[in-house]
Amino acid sequence: MEDSAPRRGRVTFGWLVGLSQVLGLVSVVLTGVWMGQYKGGFAWDGSAQQFNVHPLCMVLGLVFLQGDAILVYRVFHNEAKRNIKILHGIIHLLALCISIIGFVAVFNFHKVSKIPDMYSLHSWVGMATIVLFFLQWVIGLLFFLFPVASSWLRASYLPIHVFCGLGLLVMSIGSCLLGITEKLLFSLPTYSQFIPEGVLANVLGVLLVCFGGVVCYMVTKEDYRRPPNPEEESLSVYFKTLTEGQSPSSP
Amino acid sequence: MEDSAPRRGRVTFGWLVGLSQVLGLVSVVLTGVWMGQYKGGFAWDGSAQQFNVHPLCMVLGLVFLQGDAILVYRVFHNEAKRNIKILHGIIHLLALCISIIGFVAVFNFHKVSKIPDMYSLHSWVGMATIVLFFLQWVIGLLFFLFPVASSWLRASYLPIHVFCGLGLLVMSIGSCLLGITEKLLFSLPTYSQFIPEGVLANVLGVLLVCFGGVVCYMVTKEDYRRPPNPEEESLSVYFKTLTEGQSPSSP
Repeated sequence: MEDSAPRRGRVTFGWLVGLSQVLGLVSVVLTGVWMGQYKGGFAWDGSAQQFNVHPLCMVLGLVFLQGDAILVYRVFHNEAKRNIKILHGIIHLLALCISIIGFVAVFNFHKVSKIPDMYSLHSWVGMATIVLFFLQWVIGLLFFLFPVASSWLRASYLPIHVFCGLGLLVMSIGSCLLGITEKLLFSLPTYSQFIPEGVLANVLGVLLVCFGGVVCYMVTKEDYRRPPNPEEESLSVYFKTLTEGQSPSSP
Repeated sequence: MEDSAPRRGRVTFGWLVGLSQVLGLVSVVLTGVWMGQYKGGFAWDGSAQQFNVHPLCMVLGLVFLQGDAILVYRVFHNEAKRNIKILHGIIHLLALCISIIGFVAVFNFHKVSKIPDMYSLHSWVGMATIVLFFLQWVIGLLFFLFPVASSWLRASYLPIHVFCGLGLLVMSIGSCLLGITEKLLFSLPTYSQFIPEGVLANVLGVLLVCFGGVVCYMVTKEDYRRPPNPEEESLSVYFKTLTEGQSPSSP
């Protein structure tokens, strides 16, 4: 009877993980359908089809993969922490690369079509997000995967790293919603008539908000934190010396 | 020497509170300047000037006041918890009333100008935010100010209340950014030429994001939590009976 509450907690957690994956995957698919079905598909020739690569990359990289990279610490409870750290870093790197492809796609399209860059709120928030995302990844790599910072510094930085990670996911989703609104207002004069394309794009926006909500809930809920395991060493300590002491607690 | 770290923490906290108030107040002022200076001022006659009431009310009520209502638990450390609870509820009620005025302003303007309602992503996210905000306020009132729920139920609901509160602040800011983008794309054909109105509105969006970031940081940082005070009773227990037991910990 005593362990029924934790078990129920793990079952709920499992459902939430499933829900997050459904929300994330459906968002990626809907973006693909919107760009593929309604906007003429994909290309890499400076045309409007090249622009279509941008939303797909941002939803896939900056939202879905970033969210999943954050979740690995909660999902893989029984794996060695160093493995999870590497997985966390690799998925974030993949998210970063896909996001950069998405950025190149839109800047190249703008250049060919002589459309001004960086004037809209979407571009300001989006650019801030990708720059901070890159910085967060580099600092995370230096602090937690390589022994650059002292244990004290790493322990102090960890809560900031976690807070900024969730903040960047929220900013990414906000940027996507701004982008959806821009795209609809620029290219859909019949948006106000509740036509399928407009409704599909709105639903995409709502799903992205729900994805962010579920991921943030799972990461901030105390019960779902990875339990501390004194037998495990952080990878930085593992690389440097096995005798230096305890690593900071897991994010 | 031992208490220098907490004291330094309080000094940093004081600066963060000041920063949040500057960001919030400047956001409200910038919204007023944008609508007053560039969009023809305010009125309540179904004209475009009535629409201008909408952004001002949303930034003031749904963002600034909601953020401040959340912060009272962190700012007033030494006040009796029941007083803080009442203040928290009253500022939220004020935020709700101002937000409803903002909603009425835009729906009334749409009706007079025969503009369709509720087709845009901004309207979907905004409506979801205000409905959930209202529900959160009513449930919070019933659970924490009146003795409707049991102590166990209140304690279980508290973390959800805190998470949803921050989530609603983030959704409110997201809705504002979507609204800024809509307004600029609908009414500023020269937006891409970096004209002052466009830059001002973009800066407003960035300030709102910063306000949300600072408030969320202060609320989620463990060191800034209100220390538990066993002498204080929750107001629900205070209303019901002083002998029922401990209230759930402060949000």
